[in-house]
Amino acid sequence: MSLKLVVGNKNYSSWSMRPWVALKGAGIPFEEVFIPLYTDAADKQRILDVTPSGKVPALVDGDITVWDSLAIIEYAAERFPDAKLWPQEAAHRAHARAVSAEMHSGFMPLRNECGMNLHRPVKAKALSDDAKANIARIDAIWSDCRKRYGAAGPYLFGAFSAADAMFAPVVHRFRIYAIEVSPVARAYMDTMQANPAFRQWTEEGLAETLLIPRFEEE
Amino acid sequence: MSLKLVVGNKNYSSWSMRPWVALKGAGIPFEEVFIPLYTDAADKQRILDVTPSGKVPALVDGDITVWDSLAIIEYAAERFPDAKLWPQEAAHRAHARAVSAEMHSGFMPLRNECGMNLHRPVKAKALSDDAKANIARIDAIWSDCRKRYGAAGPYLFGAFSAADAMFAPVVHRFRIYAIEVSPVARAYMDTMQANPAFRQWTEEGLAETLLIPRFEEE
Ligand SMILES: N[C@@H](CCC(=O)N[C@@H](CS)C(=O)NCC(=O)O)C(=O)O
Ligand SMILES: N[C@@H](CCC(=O)N[C@@H](CS)C(=O)NCC(=O)O)C(=O)O
Repeated sequence: MSLKLVVGNKNYSSWSMRPWVALKGAGIPFEEVFIPLYTDAADKQRILDVTPSGKVPALVDGDITVWDSLAIIEYAAERFPDAKLWPQEAAHRAHARAVSAEMHSGFMPLRNECGMNLHRPVKAKALSDDAKANIARIDAIWSDCRKRYGAAGPYLFGAFSAADAMFAPVVHRFRIYAIEVSPVARAYMDTMQANPAFRQWTEEGLAETLLIPRFEEE
Repeated sequence: MSLKLVVGNKNYSSWSMRPWVALKGAGIPFEEVFIPLYTDAADKQRILDVTPSGKVPALVDGDITVWDSLAIIEYAAERFPDAKLWPQEAAHRAHARAVSAEMHSGFMPLRNECGMNLHRPVKAKALSDDAKANIARIDAIWSDCRKRYGAAGPYLFGAFSAADAMFAPVVHRFRIYAIEVSPVARAYMDTMQANPAFRQWTEEGLAETLLIPRFEEE
């Protein structure tokens, strides 16, 4: 029985993008179920029929339903150990989880001010100091990873890992809002933008025509 | 070499409380390092000397430093498998991670409107609809867990687990702001308030005299 990953609009759903890119990027096969976000009660009910959180993403594996992007990734990492979603060395894995959980629980100013909207024309906007601090911190996280693990490959922890998937929507935010970052961070963004899973999500998102008005405000 | 857990003020630091209660509640020995929050540049530097996130909690295990409350718990769960920080059955573990990661990344309205402040006199306050929706969702999470796993013990997943630690600060928020919850949720709060690790943190927090003015606003 195959895994089912329930996701929202690829153009907007940054939380959905993370497990999708993780599974796809690690070669774990799954079936995709799309539920359009913020439309009507029927679509909301379709989400609630899958997960009591009422939010996407959610993963269905036979009898087991897991929601929340990070929990889905932890589940997949356990279920498919050969996919090596987390780095194999304990110290690197601890580091990857630290930056992933830091991402998961923080960076609200950046998230709020720079919503993921793939088809928005690339353009800088004025940002709060808090959002700027978020950007500096993410640049520092990426730069530190590239310095420590760069010899092992082009991703944050050398080989592609869950940490790259957790930061994938940020790569789009930085691109869409023309945010200036260090050369090392820029090179990492190029690596991600060339990743086949990242590209497939992006192309499918750009092909969507559904608009969510409240996410089109600027 | 023993683990070192760096925490902030027990009266206020909800993020610090989570790994502290997880480790203590599971019987994992550690040394505690206290750094007062929001005082001066020297204290901030002490945090930065431990973790590049500039935030507590952080865990130091010899050469390895892990920050972020959830990442610390994942690290400890791997490092001390006998402590059974996560439920042993895969399906229960997936569920425990889903509610823990949902907590980790959400519930901002409740967090912002009902800051953890152990010595605040218990008193209701007017809450936004978003905060009320957060409360209803947490009540539903707890009630669902108690219904499914209640036969195995008094905690969310029967035996004490990381999920209880992740929600420990919420137990205080509900208590401090006199929030009305269902009888099942109330009984679960009683269980947590009788837990020795939860009680020790609380007593030590109440014994603190340091005030953080911006958290004393109402
Ligand atoms: N912490 C969750 C957040 C999920 C989330 O907020 N999803 C949004 C879309 S990106 C959603 O489903 N919103 C639909 C709704 O609230 O009706 C995760 O990481 O999966
Ligand atoms: N996602 C982090 C959040 C940690 C956090 O925000 N900690 C606050 C105190 S509870 C902090 O250290 N603030 C100090 C500062 O920003 O200077 C976690 O779960 O550990």
